Amino acid sequence: MKRLWSVTGGAAAGRHGGLRKVVPLPPEREGRERERHGVDGQEASGGGICRLEFEETRRNGEQGRRGEGTKRWISSPAATELEKIVMDWVGEMLQLPKEFLFSGNGGGVLQGTTCEAIFCTLISARDQTLSRIGRENMKKLVVYGSKQTHRALQKAARLIAGIHPYNFRAIETSKSTSFGLSPDSLRSSICANIEAGLGPLLLCATVGTTSTTAIDPLGSLSEVANTYGVWVHIDAAYAGCACICPEFRHFMDGVEAANSFNLNAHKWFLTTFDCYCLWVKDLGALIKSLSTTPEFLRNKATDSREVMNYKDWQITLSRRFRALKLWFVLRSNGVANLRDFLRSHIKMAKLFEGLVEVDKRFEIVATRYWFASRCCHQQWERKLTQMEKLMTVIVIT
Amino acid sequence: MKRLWSVTGGAAAGRHGGLRKVVPLPPEREGRERERHGVDGQEASGGGICRLEFEETRRNGEQGRRGEGTKRWISSPAATELEKIVMDWVGEMLQLPKEFLFSGNGGGVLQGTTCEAIFCTLISARDQTLSRIGRENMKKLVVYGSKQTHRALQKAARLIAGIHPYNFRAIETSKSTSFGLSPDSLRSSICANIEAGLGPLLLCATVGTTSTTAIDPLGSLSEVANTYGVWVHIDAAYAGCACICPEFRHFMDGVEAANSFNLNAHKWFLTTFDCYCLWVKDLGALIKSLSTTPEFLRNKATDSREVMNYKDWQITLSRRFRALKLWFVLRSNGVANLRDFLRSHIKMAKLFEGLVEVDKRFEIVATRYWFASRCCHQQWERKLTQMEKLMTVIVIT
Repeated sequence: MKRLWSVTGGAAAGRHGGLRKVVPLPPEREGRERERHGVDGQEASGGGICRLEFEETRRNGEQGRRGEGTKRWISSPAATELEKIVMDWVGEMLQLPKEFLFSGNGGGVLQGTTCEAIFCTLISARDQTLSRIGRENMKKLVVYGSKQTHRALQKAARLIAGIHPYNFRAIETSKSTSFGLSPDSLRSSICANIEAGLGPLLLCATVGTTSTTAIDPLGSLSEVANTYGVWVHIDAAYAGCACICPEFRHFMDGVEAANSFNLNAHKWFLTTFDCYCLWVKDLGALIKSLSTTPEFLRNKATDSREVMNYKDWQITLSRRFRALKLWFVLRSNGVANLRDFLRSHIKMAKLFEGLVEVDKRFEIVATRYWFASRCCHQQWERKLTQMEKLMTVIVIT
Repeated sequence: MKRLWSVTGGAAAGRHGGLRKVVPLPPEREGRERERHGVDGQEASGGGICRLEFEETRRNGEQGRRGEGTKRWISSPAATELEKIVMDWVGEMLQLPKEFLFSGNGGGVLQGTTCEAIFCTLISARDQTLSRIGRENMKKLVVYGSKQTHRALQKAARLIAGIHPYNFRAIETSKSTSFGLSPDSLRSSICANIEAGLGPLLLCATVGTTSTTAIDPLGSLSEVANTYGVWVHIDAAYAGCACICPEFRHFMDGVEAANSFNLNAHKWFLTTFDCYCLWVKDLGALIKSLSTTPEFLRNKATDSREVMNYKDWQITLSRRFRALKLWFVLRSNGVANLRDFLRSHIKMAKLFEGLVEVDKRFEIVATRYWFASRCCHQQWERKLTQMEKLMTVIVIT
């Protein structure tokens, strides 16, 4: 406690950006100094947050409420600030462009799952486009992905966000492009739709698909999408984690032209379910679509616009304090150890691939990427079931 | 472990409905016998679930995956079955009509928050109506609530589900009806909308509003709504918990005419955030709107339609195993103790109201309901702030 208060001047740590001063070092430099991090974590997350909460809520004339979580800054100022710090940290580890970080003009949020986050970006894109072309044109909006894109996009678009079921395009991919979405196919689809009087809305490109760990060419896809004013969301749910290793960072090349980006810390970052990281460049579009401020949630801090409320970044109003577990993972391991952990999995996958390669019962279907999933097709001698006919995906992690 | 397996014949407990036989007693009879319940809980939730999962997944030729949670029955059969049992238990405690329970034709699901669950029912109602009147009429759909209804409805309708922003009706309430929504006002609004060529879609009635704990007259509102084919959702997030006490059950009278009902176990049931209970009568409508089954999630158990997958009951695909914490609360306390706990809070609220009544600085604004919230308006001598002008809501729980 002592250190926290001496560094920050007491309750000031809870103010907008104040907590950042408590741990000014980026996680990159932390390495294996576990003991010290443990103390930091305890200070900032335990007594610190409780006391900051009390001080800040008292200052703003607001009584604390149970179950408020990190819904509003005023309910838990230090928890909100910690989430912002953690999101900037992971963003920096990924070398995300500055525009996606709080230290730039964007920012990140921890949500539950891919569905939830894709849904939020889809709504932002939808409302941004409708404000330009008029709400009566909603039935004309088209969403693009590949046959490999996670089904979460289809669920968000077709079933939930009110996009017409016929306006979801799952573009074919092939082995020739290692199952990545071809920019030419995207351009053809967009042009055909515009000609038919439809309105291209959003493209979801993927780094590491569920079925084959395929990687879409982000740069050239974004170029096509940007030409037609299409929002680009990059879903790097699983494989994005590996991109904190410099040797794999190039799989994210092209992210600078996208509007939003995600990865799942609960997939490959030693973090428990659920912990999903979403970054957006245009905070205004997200918050405009998702914010509501009924009278009982108003307070001086928010009205002054000095702080932000994470309730305006997601579907639900209430939310859990997910930043804490990710904070502990980052602080107790350090980036160096996390990288070693990822590399050890990828090494195992390479070993596995070698064993499969020499076994004639299997065929390697997609080998290009050194992630921990390897796709191989077993050449069964007996009659194949429907599932076996498709592909046997062996996931080590 | 011994008891679990001897009663159910081993892995059969994981099959559809099998786990129910392990604990055939309804929670009503459990009382304070904590020790025995502890053993049950440990058996069913710990070793039992792991072993059942292994047995069932092996039988269905499916490898278990980390992070699957209770997404699919096949990933965690006993966890899915436990959620079904717990939802039927709470439904029985509330004396919900049989049509809302698995033992009838309906069923319940544990979700995160009010927003999420209202959103799911709204989508079900939306798709059910659009399949009748055509998707091109989406912009005509109207959603009804009162000025007291939780802002989650507005967020779900206006911001997310694609309902036109002008088509959200927050009908005025007054002190004369203790801030409950008047059926006459609802009828007038619906008739005016129909005359204007719009399509009434959903009414959200509330048992215990956030601002004043007002209770809408469920029976007469449902009667009006049913006349015009409007889906009735009842949001009893906070006050619904008290309805497990026979003396408060009458506040839910009329629920039999509704389509869906919810309460928040994390509000007043000694359960940690998040744990939101939603029951629906028409499972078909919910699942039709929310299900997706990509190839990698297919399996024999689901294809045979013998089992259900909770991923088809909510926005997201992945989900946490929330039933366990609610199971422990129910088993370790028993209904009798939960009722005593709720009554003790309500007794405190009555005591508080008595103290406020004799203090001339305060005015009691809404006193009709014996829930643990009391609304009073402080007569300030100094200049009032905007928030103080409205109302001071003092929440004991």
